[in-house]
Amino acid sequence: MELISIEDVRAAGADIAGTVVRTPLLPTLFDDELWLKPENLQPVGSFKLRGATHAVARLDPVARSRGVVTHSSGNHGQALAYAARTFGVPCTVVVPQGAPQVKVDRIRALGAVVRLVPPARRLAEAELVVAATGATLVPPFDHRWIIAGQGTIGVEIVADLPEVDVVLVPVGGGGLASGVATAVKALRPSATVIGVEPELAADARDSLAAGEVVVWDVERTYRTSADGLRTNLSALTLAHLRERLDGIVTVSEQEIAAAAGRLVREARLVVEPSGAVAVAARLFHRAELPAGRTVAVVTGGNVDPAALAATLTG
Amino acid sequence: MELISIEDVRAAGADIAGTVVRTPLLPTLFDDELWLKPENLQPVGSFKLRGATHAVARLDPVARSRGVVTHSSGNHGQALAYAARTFGVPCTVVVPQGAPQVKVDRIRALGAVVRLVPPARRLAEAELVVAATGATLVPPFDHRWIIAGQGTIGVEIVADLPEVDVVLVPVGGGGLASGVATAVKALRPSATVIGVEPELAADARDSLAAGEVVVWDVERTYRTSADGLRTNLSALTLAHLRERLDGIVTVSEQEIAAAAGRLVREARLVVEPSGAVAVAARLFHRAELPAGRTVAVVTGGNVDPAALAATLTG
Repeated sequence: MELISIEDVRAAGADIAGTVVRTPLLPTLFDDELWLKPENLQPVGSFKLRGATHAVARLDPVARSRGVVTHSSGNHGQALAYAARTFGVPCTVVVPQGAPQVKVDRIRALGAVVRLVPPARRLAEAELVVAATGATLVPPFDHRWIIAGQGTIGVEIVADLPEVDVVLVPVGGGGLASGVATAVKALRPSATVIGVEPELAADARDSLAAGEVVVWDVERTYRTSADGLRTNLSALTLAHLRERLDGIVTVSEQEIAAAAGRLVREARLVVEPSGAVAVAARLFHRAELPAGRTVAVVTGGNVDPAALAATLTG
Repeated sequence: MELISIEDVRAAGADIAGTVVRTPLLPTLFDDELWLKPENLQPVGSFKLRGATHAVARLDPVARSRGVVTHSSGNHGQALAYAARTFGVPCTVVVPQGAPQVKVDRIRALGAVVRLVPPARRLAEAELVVAATGATLVPPFDHRWIIAGQGTIGVEIVADLPEVDVVLVPVGGGGLASGVATAVKALRPSATVIGVEPELAADARDSLAAGEVVVWDVERTYRTSADGLRTNLSALTLAHLRERLDGIVTVSEQEIAAAAGRLVREARLVVEPSGAVAVAARLFHRAELPAGRTVAVVTGGNVDPAALAATLTG
């Protein structure tokens, strides 16, 4: 299977400039060798905007006129709606009935058409839209354009901290980790790139150990608060991670909550549980990590206000 | 009185590069023509790091060896302690007895010596330190180096959004507004720079109307939640604002709280009340402001976690 290259990531960087925020690296007061890459500051609140913007930017004029569609109602759905609006491309997001109304409202506010369907019919409905309109299906992670777009984070990390030693990156479907590892290993071969997963959704760890995609089903992964990391790898992302990721660390639910609280109180960043796992690894699993200048990717900040308030007072 | 120039601000920018975070402009989903300048992301949680770092950087080697001192226990005290640590300069912060322990702990954690004195003795104590050690007193705003340092925010705004039409900047002692107005009016003369104050601490509005520093005493200003904006202007900052600021807008306590909640929920930024006033002006006083591409300076994020939780659930 052909992996993406650093040239693919550089091309993505040129495509997304101006639409995606060039986030800085933030030093922290609680750890002299830790910097945060705050992707929760993207206008839709997560790094997903990078891959989605790259995918829309790569469409030719005919494809753009036919639109894009996705069946992810989470951060990728919002990101695709935002990217499509930026380029003036029609967008449909298939959303499972029962999804929080606030998510539906946000996607609609970005100008996308929302189709509410029973959860089991999400993919089929998206494929119906493709068949009826010729729209392009933009998946949340299992696509070379998406991986290359997320990889721009790695290019920016090395540009801002050329002597980086360790990069900690959350692993859900693996698109982000695949892209970041591609960029960092190409630009700074001596750096170590470590994936971070919740203990309750450690399918990437198992997949890397087995050398094939190991599926943790939803009855198992729904228990983690890090809802953005419940997804399993694809063959494409596993191939990237086997070649380019140096290891996986897992973190507990208590560690995720503690890291999220620390980020709110001491880094002034609102983060969702998935966005806090890399910092949790640095705070609580330091003995399992290489020493040195470390960057933790803070992936997103779309969290329920009541849950955030509980983090602050708990 | 000689005002600072754009060259002074540019020189400050060179001095603080590498120590101070180069914050990006953040677009928002709730206002297509509003960008945030998130200075709450500085490692000490406020823009004060810019002026303090510039002041320490400007000291000659003999002055550095003798150290710095300040009698501000708030954001400026933390900023000076951080800047002094960066340059290896001894630092003393005079703190009034009764100040929150968390502030004292933070200043000490940055390596500064804390002197606890009765509130009325703060300035005298700082002057004693100067007399005994030859340390340099670094005031929170009433100094050309401080004003030039804060002005680097204006240079960055115009660099990132060359067609900016309006800049909204909070006014406390006026150092930030003086520096930002200096930079923006020099680099983008057609832009309008508007100061924002709480209604309950509108001393700068009154001072500009009177043409001299009008003092609102602490019995009056303590009522605003925006504790960073209770300070009165100095002759130096008033002179800058008379020449370079285009106007003042005042905001209510309810508007400040609503803006802070919006920033937490929709921009994923933890802000203190003083840090939310510029956004409050844009949200609630739009008819008083010029139209067009607007930047709001979000000055700081050092807020009590319980107060923040109340914002989220209230």
